[in-house]
Amino acid sequence: MKNNAKSRVLKVSPDDYGSAKLQTAARAMAGPRDVKCGVFAKQGTNGNAMAAEVDRFGGVTVYLNERDFPPDVSEGAFDVLLRDSLSQWRAEGRVAAWLHVPIAQSRLVAVAAARGFTFHHARRDRSTLCLWLGEGESMLPAFATHQVGVAGAVLDEASGKVLVVQDKNKTKNAWKFPGGLSNLGENIGDAAVREVCEETGVRAEFRSLLSVRQQHDHPGAFGMSDLYATCRLRPLSFRITLCPRECLRAEWMGLEELARTDATTPITRRGALLLLHGLRHGFQHVDLPLEELPAVQPGRRYQLYHRALPAGGPQND
Amino acid sequence: MKNNAKSRVLKVSPDDYGSAKLQTAARAMAGPRDVKCGVFAKQGTNGNAMAAEVDRFGGVTVYLNERDFPPDVSEGAFDVLLRDSLSQWRAEGRVAAWLHVPIAQSRLVAVAAARGFTFHHARRDRSTLCLWLGEGESMLPAFATHQVGVAGAVLDEASGKVLVVQDKNKTKNAWKFPGGLSNLGENIGDAAVREVCEETGVRAEFRSLLSVRQQHDHPGAFGMSDLYATCRLRPLSFRITLCPRECLRAEWMGLEELARTDATTPITRRGALLLLHGLRHGFQHVDLPLEELPAVQPGRRYQLYHRALPAGGPQND
Repeated sequence: MKNNAKSRVLKVSPDDYGSAKLQTAARAMAGPRDVKCGVFAKQGTNGNAMAAEVDRFGGVTVYLNERDFPPDVSEGAFDVLLRDSLSQWRAEGRVAAWLHVPIAQSRLVAVAAARGFTFHHARRDRSTLCLWLGEGESMLPAFATHQVGVAGAVLDEASGKVLVVQDKNKTKNAWKFPGGLSNLGENIGDAAVREVCEETGVRAEFRSLLSVRQQHDHPGAFGMSDLYATCRLRPLSFRITLCPRECLRAEWMGLEELARTDATTPITRRGALLLLHGLRHGFQHVDLPLEELPAVQPGRRYQLYHRALPAGGPQND
Repeated sequence: MKNNAKSRVLKVSPDDYGSAKLQTAARAMAGPRDVKCGVFAKQGTNGNAMAAEVDRFGGVTVYLNERDFPPDVSEGAFDVLLRDSLSQWRAEGRVAAWLHVPIAQSRLVAVAAARGFTFHHARRDRSTLCLWLGEGESMLPAFATHQVGVAGAVLDEASGKVLVVQDKNKTKNAWKFPGGLSNLGENIGDAAVREVCEETGVRAEFRSLLSVRQQHDHPGAFGMSDLYATCRLRPLSFRITLCPRECLRAEWMGLEELARTDATTPITRRGALLLLHGLRHGFQHVDLPLEELPAVQPGRRYQLYHRALPAGGPQND
């Protein structure tokens, strides 16, 4: 790698994006301003090149914010800048280029697409494009592939009855556990408790995970996959207040009846059988209890589910 | 809803998109062609409106393909068309509007954004925008929120040794089970078998799911969440051929040593403890066996994981 090429590359973390620090750094590194492409255009003997952040995998990232790429930037000027940048990044041995594009700047997306970029993902008000520059097949990690649905099986252990609903807008009126999609950042158990309350008004607390289902090309997942987690919950209230927008009806149903009826789904029936087995022989035989552990990243935690192990560790096992 | 407004709405399934059928239908329904916006522009007493597909939730969808919205369509003309379409859709009581935009047409994304649309998602060569038109908060389902990582714990039951690796590019050289991200459409077990083989050359077969971890705002997940599934695998070969691109080293390590060493991660240690317990007392105490069941959608199947139940159903339970 040539030193003069390397010196053009900004090393900042994504957290600094848009900050005064980055702006100052970008300006300090940039040459004479190009009227159309702001501080990110730089005249050099090797042509123009956008200042870019380098990651530890050897890729480069550029943020096409409005400040540096004004709304009136010509598509032709951006194309020349991108062409020259790609030449330089290839010469430097970069393996990938990433562009973060505010939605209002989406004209530039079409220009980048003509140079081989594709969408990696997009959310709300920005898209992220990528282009593999390395040899062979792209090694870039894909974006999220799964939605996570949850069902809350609220079991009243005293009566052996479980809370079931029939959804609106379904062709078949099957009895199911209340549930729905988890929100971004929401734990499986919290989502189950929330969905139960939203659909039936029943308050409950999380006890354990019972089952996980994986289904690909799931209807309603926009071509992506679905993970569906059935949770065992304990009721804190019993009175049903139906959400008329989501549910046709709801009731407390005996587990044996739910395990027997044809008016249910295979996965709900399986949940009923797991709960029946737990009620008769102890829930430790069906539960996947939750444990929170510290993540590698300082201050972060994760939720882990598996069969309970005997206390005391392997020496007492 | 007025009849003349309703008659402008195409009712086609997404599968028909781009097909001769849709093109013919669109042309048959369209009025005089607008030079700039193809068949999708229609003059009417209520103004211009794009033909749109109606879904069963009361939303409308428009595909901004190049055939109907040529590359030289003016942003001003599209803006007027979109404005009039939104007025009409609101008057018709539509709750949401969806735009599917090929990447080369991304100029139109910026126009739509100025009218309130945001990205729902984008993949490869197209983006999908949405705008909630109903009352209150948006009820539109979100896009995929999780990546699914897998780890393959390949246990040689005869020796009590398990296959472990140290990743390249990590700050801490911790022993872990080989693994990585599952691909779109790939089952958890298949992904674990593939990752083990890619990283170590060891062939193995899936036996069961051992644990599931959920972590939010996961580093490397582009702000999204991560589900990490540890699988128990049985080795079909033992010779290690290290992938130098991904791994620093790999070896068969005794389970007790892996459960004891500091040079590992909490989740790997937990996996070692689960395997030890299984080896000593039977894997039925730690396994979540896989079962394939038919989905509601004809011809589709899904994979379900939970504690094994006694054979014969609840009457023998």
